[in-house]
Amino acid sequence: MDATQLQEKTVLSGIERPTDVQQLSSPELIQLAGELRRLIIDTVATTGGHLAPSLGVVELTLALLRAFDPSRDKIVWDVGHQAYVYKILTGRRDRFGTLRSLGGISGFPKMSESAYDHFGVGHSSTSISAALGMACGRDLKGRDNRVVAVIGDGSMTAGQAYEGLNQAGGLHSDMIVVLNDNEMSISRNVGALSSFFSRNLTKSWVVRFKKDVESILKSVPKIGEDLATYARKSEEAFKHFFTPGMLFEAFRFNYLGPFDGHNIDLMTSVFEQVKKLSGPVLVHVLTKKGKGYQPAEDNPTYFHGVGCFEPETGLARKFGGCSLPSYTDVFGQTLCRMAEEDQSIIAITAAMPEGTGLDRFRERFPDRFVDVGICEQHAVTFAAGLATEGFKPVVVIYSTFMQRSYDQIVHDVCLQNLPVVLCLDRGGLVGEDGPTHHGAFDMSYLRHIPNLVFMAPADEAELQRMLVTAIRHDGPVALRYPRGVGLGTPTVEKPEPLPLGEGCLLRDGTDAVVVAIGSRVNPSLAAAEELERETGASVAVFNARFIRPMPEAQLIELAGRFSKMLLVEENVLKGGFGSGVLEVLSDNGALSGVTVKRLGLPDGFVEHGKQKELRARLGIDKVGIRRNLEELLASA
Amino acid sequence: MDATQLQEKTVLSGIERPTDVQQLSSPELIQLAGELRRLIIDTVATTGGHLAPSLGVVELTLALLRAFDPSRDKIVWDVGHQAYVYKILTGRRDRFGTLRSLGGISGFPKMSESAYDHFGVGHSSTSISAALGMACGRDLKGRDNRVVAVIGDGSMTAGQAYEGLNQAGGLHSDMIVVLNDNEMSISRNVGALSSFFSRNLTKSWVVRFKKDVESILKSVPKIGEDLATYARKSEEAFKHFFTPGMLFEAFRFNYLGPFDGHNIDLMTSVFEQVKKLSGPVLVHVLTKKGKGYQPAEDNPTYFHGVGCFEPETGLARKFGGCSLPSYTDVFGQTLCRMAEEDQSIIAITAAMPEGTGLDRFRERFPDRFVDVGICEQHAVTFAAGLATEGFKPVVVIYSTFMQRSYDQIVHDVCLQNLPVVLCLDRGGLVGEDGPTHHGAFDMSYLRHIPNLVFMAPADEAELQRMLVTAIRHDGPVALRYPRGVGLGTPTVEKPEPLPLGEGCLLRDGTDAVVVAIGSRVNPSLAAAEELERETGASVAVFNARFIRPMPEAQLIELAGRFSKMLLVEENVLKGGFGSGVLEVLSDNGALSGVTVKRLGLPDGFVEHGKQKELRARLGIDKVGIRRNLEELLASA
Repeated sequence: MDATQLQEKTVLSGIERPTDVQQLSSPELIQLAGELRRLIIDTVATTGGHLAPSLGVVELTLALLRAFDPSRDKIVWDVGHQAYVYKILTGRRDRFGTLRSLGGISGFPKMSESAYDHFGVGHSSTSISAALGMACGRDLKGRDNRVVAVIGDGSMTAGQAYEGLNQAGGLHSDMIVVLNDNEMSISRNVGALSSFFSRNLTKSWVVRFKKDVESILKSVPKIGEDLATYARKSEEAFKHFFTPGMLFEAFRFNYLGPFDGHNIDLMTSVFEQVKKLSGPVLVHVLTKKGKGYQPAEDNPTYFHGVGCFEPETGLARKFGGCSLPSYTDVFGQTLCRMAEEDQSIIAITAAMPEGTGLDRFRERFPDRFVDVGICEQHAVTFAAGLATEGFKPVVVIYSTFMQRSYDQIVHDVCLQNLPVVLCLDRGGLVGEDGPTHHGAFDMSYLRHIPNLVFMAPADEAELQRMLVTAIRHDGPVALRYPRGVGLGTPTVEKPEPLPLGEGCLLRDGTDAVVVAIGSRVNPSLAAAEELERETGASVAVFNARFIRPMPEAQLIELAGRFSKMLLVEENVLKGGFGSGVLEVLSDNGALSGVTVKRLGLPDGFVEHGKQKELRARLGIDKVGIRRNLEELLASA
Repeated sequence: MDATQLQEKTVLSGIERPTDVQQLSSPELIQLAGELRRLIIDTVATTGGHLAPSLGVVELTLALLRAFDPSRDKIVWDVGHQAYVYKILTGRRDRFGTLRSLGGISGFPKMSESAYDHFGVGHSSTSISAALGMACGRDLKGRDNRVVAVIGDGSMTAGQAYEGLNQAGGLHSDMIVVLNDNEMSISRNVGALSSFFSRNLTKSWVVRFKKDVESILKSVPKIGEDLATYARKSEEAFKHFFTPGMLFEAFRFNYLGPFDGHNIDLMTSVFEQVKKLSGPVLVHVLTKKGKGYQPAEDNPTYFHGVGCFEPETGLARKFGGCSLPSYTDVFGQTLCRMAEEDQSIIAITAAMPEGTGLDRFRERFPDRFVDVGICEQHAVTFAAGLATEGFKPVVVIYSTFMQRSYDQIVHDVCLQNLPVVLCLDRGGLVGEDGPTHHGAFDMSYLRHIPNLVFMAPADEAELQRMLVTAIRHDGPVALRYPRGVGLGTPTVEKPEPLPLGEGCLLRDGTDAVVVAIGSRVNPSLAAAEELERETGASVAVFNARFIRPMPEAQLIELAGRFSKMLLVEENVLKGGFGSGVLEVLSDNGALSGVTVKRLGLPDGFVEHGKQKELRARLGIDKVGIRRNLEELLASA
């Protein structure tokens, strides 16, 4: 491998500026593609990250950098998890080993990291909107640089992409949308258009459609000529309606493709030609997710975002000792168990069956599992519709992505008081994915919505109990739990529901009380125990369990008994859990004589890094909680 | 007119149950349509409301009720402002005069109002999602009722509609989407698809498209056969691509239409036939907004949502005295004035140029005005893209609709600290449109977002100053102002910017202090003045101006000087302005010895009614503020 490495260094190490790739010969480019893959595989094997997406766009990125100059042309990567190649080639080769680590480079394009990152991304389907804004800005300034959005077919399922396409077609600005079609979002794509985009577009679909048309024709003789004519017209038109381009042409885009996205020379000449066109252009490119790394080609969903692995085999690296189940695992198992007994439970995911632990549910209850695609808005309203029919929809979406559904949660679920269960996985700090993915705001953006019950479990066993509570409650419920493994608390077959709005005093004391929520309960308990052991201070710990309704009576009682209170959460302090506790105490005149200190996430965006590192830095781990407790105890 | 009225009563007064329309003859139905129009015009002339949308669907609604039985079939009206006819025919004829008044029937379908309202609506583009949920629920229960979503072409521009269509086509459930195409949303439609839906679909578009294709063909000879073949294939296909149906067929919907939506018999037989089809069906219906009432046909935008008017002429009713300009007017004028001097200002609306006061801007600066359609998500990210190009995008959206952009505000604007100005018109209670439209949550859903500056003006002059402040600030800013007229404070040519995070003591005192924000400042001042006049109590009033950054130093100073503090806002108390004040005071140890009382919107959804009535009922008008002040002063 040494000789190979030596040879490999040649081309990549010669790249100083992004446009240097324009000087390379075809064989050099092919070699460079190999070197980039090796660098990415070796790095991600150590750092974890989004492997398969970046491997799929090595050639595409090279072609983009041959045809466009990112120091004047704008390239907006949708989601941005496929931008590793771009990062390496735009001045971040030497820092690539720091990918996703504290202080290192981000796993996503980020404007503050590089002038070549023209727009920060992380959430899906924003690229067309942002690129159109850039194109309009360019036109107003009278410049002529190119604007390119690179978007996957998965991201194209989200409504915002459609909104962007529609306006781009309407304005008819010069912009290029590269549709990177790998037939995948994170998991397999869903929805009508997924088969439409696909290269297997498909005899079966044509046959099915014609059958449908015939059934219309047969069924409507009575209505007269009109309807039949329309239907026949449709059939006729359909025969010619066999390129994916028709959809984009309806949006007044010039459609070109599909092209082999792994052919650098072809893609370069396509982009060179496209540069000469005016108006919005859509270039349809076919790529293979995980390309060039067999384990990722074989299992692109697993290698979409992956932890550390052995690069030779693709097998996950073991880090000694027993491995605990994650909250996601416990959630998935518990929901399955409940669904066996309760036929009304329907599980809904937005393109992430694996990430949310619903893959197990999908296998067991395929009829009661719905993947809506990357459509968080639709997911929530769809669930509301199901709830009106007497079902118990359980919508499982990462906290950061549930932000997309805020209006639907307010308007379609809570205003109508419908029994939809919203499960926010990855609440709190997610670690290496950083500020675009931290679930830092959910307690603030959900706490004020009327009718909602909102809980956060302290451990896996409590997650089970909260899920039962949520399913049995006849109204909207949200449930927020963290990324990562739990504490190893034993789970049970038949968890007991919890009384609404009641917390639990885990430990009594005399000197102060810690009121904690969710993942911060256990470190608070550990801090209090350690403090007593080492200093003799007697600190009570209360697990609030509910962000709403708040355990008001208990909080008031605690404020009456303790003159010092520490509130701990893993959410921004503004408007979060502790803010709610202050409201309860103030509104009930219970704050008098109580010194309250709040611990949580600061008023800013938290960077990427390991969860453990970030929590330590922000002082919300056991050490930080203990330090704050000591300060509180020492205060007047 | 008496004779006419007598005759008119005949048919409508005979309708007891919705299905009674099924017994009527064609002439009776035509007469009924006229009676319904008269009732709606006469009622809305008095109550105000959404006139033009409902007038446009009189025949369509009758046809739906002839073909479907709303006691078992589900009908979901998108937005729902067109549902007056449906309300009248489904048991609410006799209460129709109470439309939009306190305690009366809602201006929108509402599940708690009637079992015939199968889904509560108010915000756009939720109907397909909800109906699909109902269809899936029906299938799981093994029932055979029909599910119908009625959606306007304007609502079809929002991403959520696309998300719903895509999944409906993918699942292939039996459901019917009625596309009510009147070529309008609230204002004229925009975007590529608007011309596509339109009946004028059009030679010009076809010609243009062919020209585009030719330009591709001419420009790309070098790239070889592949590209040319694709382009030619597109051209060929396009010749047959001339029905709007192609778009929906891409979504695997059976497409039928377009039909004359004012022909009751035709539409009835279409729906009767459609009932027999399986899978998702789209029925394209052409209607005229405001149909049957000349003033509304002539000016459908004005009569979309209208105040009281003279039914004979359509002219607005004058209510004596001088009429003050609304906040919206002042906003629109001030922005125009600033845009004359600052070329970087771009105004963006989501389908509401008139409602947001940007119609004036559109006329003056057409190149710097963008209507994105009903696409709040896209609007915000598009603005972020413009901001990266050095522009100052001003996005003006009603507070309740800005909820759709929460994720984009966090992720695309604030995380990147881009100078986008978000103007939330209709912040606080909007009155007659009720809970789906109140801007009750914005202080809670925006206050916790890092980097954002967030202000609310106490009067028109302050709105001007805040707008200047926002435009000059190099970072994200939100500005929230109420629906309705201001106080009549004189506006100026060149408003002065405000120092960030500083409030203003309007009135000093010794016994207590009121800390108020936005529209509640003036009533607080009036209450304090009245109280002093009548009781001699000396109450200070502080206008906080900023929800973030909070005027921390000033608040701490006030808490040091006063032992009684009343916080007043027109936002839900949870997580709102007063919650933020508590945080500041608690975190700075300034709460000790201070009794704080908070006034604002309760933890629930506020019903519809006049703004004045609602504020009185909730105790946040002058009278309520005074009463609370007196209680606070009387407390220990």
